Amino acid sequence: MSLVIIGTVAFDAIETPFGKTDKIVGGAATYASLAASYFYEKVKIVGVVGDDFHQEDIDTIKSHGIDVEGLQVKNGEKSFFWSGKYHIDMNSRDTLTTELNVLADFDPQIPESYQDCDFLLLGNLTPKIQQITINRLRNRPKLIVLDTMNFWMDVALEDLLETLKMVDVLTINDAEARQLSGEYSLVKAARKILQMGPKFLIIKKGEHGALLFNEDMIFSAPALPLADVFDPTGAGDTFAGGFIGYLAKVSTINFNNMKNAIIYGSALASFCVEKFGTEGLKDLSNEKIASRVQEFVNLSSFVIEQ
Amino acid sequence: MSLVIIGTVAFDAIETPFGKTDKIVGGAATYASLAASYFYEKVKIVGVVGDDFHQEDIDTIKSHGIDVEGLQVKNGEKSFFWSGKYHIDMNSRDTLTTELNVLADFDPQIPESYQDCDFLLLGNLTPKIQQITINRLRNRPKLIVLDTMNFWMDVALEDLLETLKMVDVLTINDAEARQLSGEYSLVKAARKILQMGPKFLIIKKGEHGALLFNEDMIFSAPALPLADVFDPTGAGDTFAGGFIGYLAKVSTINFNNMKNAIIYGSALASFCVEKFGTEGLKDLSNEKIASRVQEFVNLSSFVIEQ
Repeated sequence: MSLVIIGTVAFDAIETPFGKTDKIVGGAATYASLAASYFYEKVKIVGVVGDDFHQEDIDTIKSHGIDVEGLQVKNGEKSFFWSGKYHIDMNSRDTLTTELNVLADFDPQIPESYQDCDFLLLGNLTPKIQQITINRLRNRPKLIVLDTMNFWMDVALEDLLETLKMVDVLTINDAEARQLSGEYSLVKAARKILQMGPKFLIIKKGEHGALLFNEDMIFSAPALPLADVFDPTGAGDTFAGGFIGYLAKVSTINFNNMKNAIIYGSALASFCVEKFGTEGLKDLSNEKIASRVQEFVNLSSFVIEQ
Repeated sequence: MSLVIIGTVAFDAIETPFGKTDKIVGGAATYASLAASYFYEKVKIVGVVGDDFHQEDIDTIKSHGIDVEGLQVKNGEKSFFWSGKYHIDMNSRDTLTTELNVLADFDPQIPESYQDCDFLLLGNLTPKIQQITINRLRNRPKLIVLDTMNFWMDVALEDLLETLKMVDVLTINDAEARQLSGEYSLVKAARKILQMGPKFLIIKKGEHGALLFNEDMIFSAPALPLADVFDPTGAGDTFAGGFIGYLAKVSTINFNNMKNAIIYGSALASFCVEKFGTEGLKDLSNEKIASRVQEFVNLSSFVIEQ
């Protein structure tokens, strides 16, 4: 019984209206596994880094109880590096640099000890690698969540459509849902996307919250209005990690548990964006998370007496 | 005891990706009073039309029990006319025509029978006229709600700031909240705007729902995800009318009642956008409204056991 998370483990350099960082540790698998580690003990990473990745960075991940046996370290090579600059609205950003480095020929290795995987999160990566990962697990996990982005819709749509047939949950943002479906209405977009394979679709809307769809139900989750968003980097990965981590903990897959998983994922994402990089995810506690989740309850509850 | 609504009563010609209308009856006071009439019996309009406004149009409004004694009819003049074309995203539109006509020298008349007003909705109009309306009521209403738009921030900011000091609730959209406050974060924007006079601020976010702020609480209301939005014209006015109509009905002003008022206002707005013009507001029933409100409950409720 474990939760396997595949994705980038990388360096980011980030500029926002509030400040600027040098190369700091980032990557989808890093954010997602840190978030998941607050809910579930057996989180296992699949990824690849170069020898520029410091042992102390790996130790930070391990200190959260995360298994890194599936994290390959390539000697003489460099880690994936991304740098970007956010606009004042924090919803849009310019990519300044993308150096694939070790990611260019990433061949995901699944250690034997990961074959007990029953929850699988496919972080944002090429759809082909996401597919290979599923195929390399001997038993089909109980739940497969796939995160992707517009880039793969542009350059690898066929692979993405193939991979979508193999997963249970897809998480994308509203613009991506529109692009993938060709429908402007998110209700119509969801109907089409749910025909492509996933049984559940989560549409992330940033500061506007998230929508969860299955064949006949919709859940609208609020976002916590924040006075300061310092750095949105990794918010989506953190959300996905918190989401699947919570489901791995409760273990039963149904719409109500998915709703709560979205609230927990959103709560973790709200911690993430309050600080630069992964800082906001390093030092949480059950009490802090419970209190943040209570803010979501207070924010959105109302009682109609009819 | 009554609810007085001041605003435009007008003709609109609307083009959306789904179709096109000739001149049809519109205007902020029309939408808002129709919406309010489903909750409260004593709704009274203040406005002005020309003699091109047909008796049957006025009769439609009266058939909802709405008092039109304060609706002036100017012989030999034409009603306010607006025409616009919506883009495919339905969130943006181009104004094709604005003919002020009778609105150019509108001097609001408050009939003696309106002096029992304890709920006042100031629909989108020049801030000066909104202010005059308040001053012409002998007793300060229990609740004054003001709706406005970016146009008045551009051309009549000083008047608007004066008027804001006199009201209890302000309803604007997210872009307008940012413009009025100079803050991008809606939390910071709300803090600043609540210093300008209103005790409550409602930020309308269209398909993303609405936020209610007072000094120390926030409520996030969902929007109903709709497969088809035929015509967003009047959605904001309908929301405001439903909101204040519900509050007039329950009569007690507190944060919880305001939350429910937002849900009822949003429910009415969801009916409004499903058809062209005011069509969606003409033929509702308590049962239809209750069932729509239940959809909002189902959409947004979750239960966390901690």
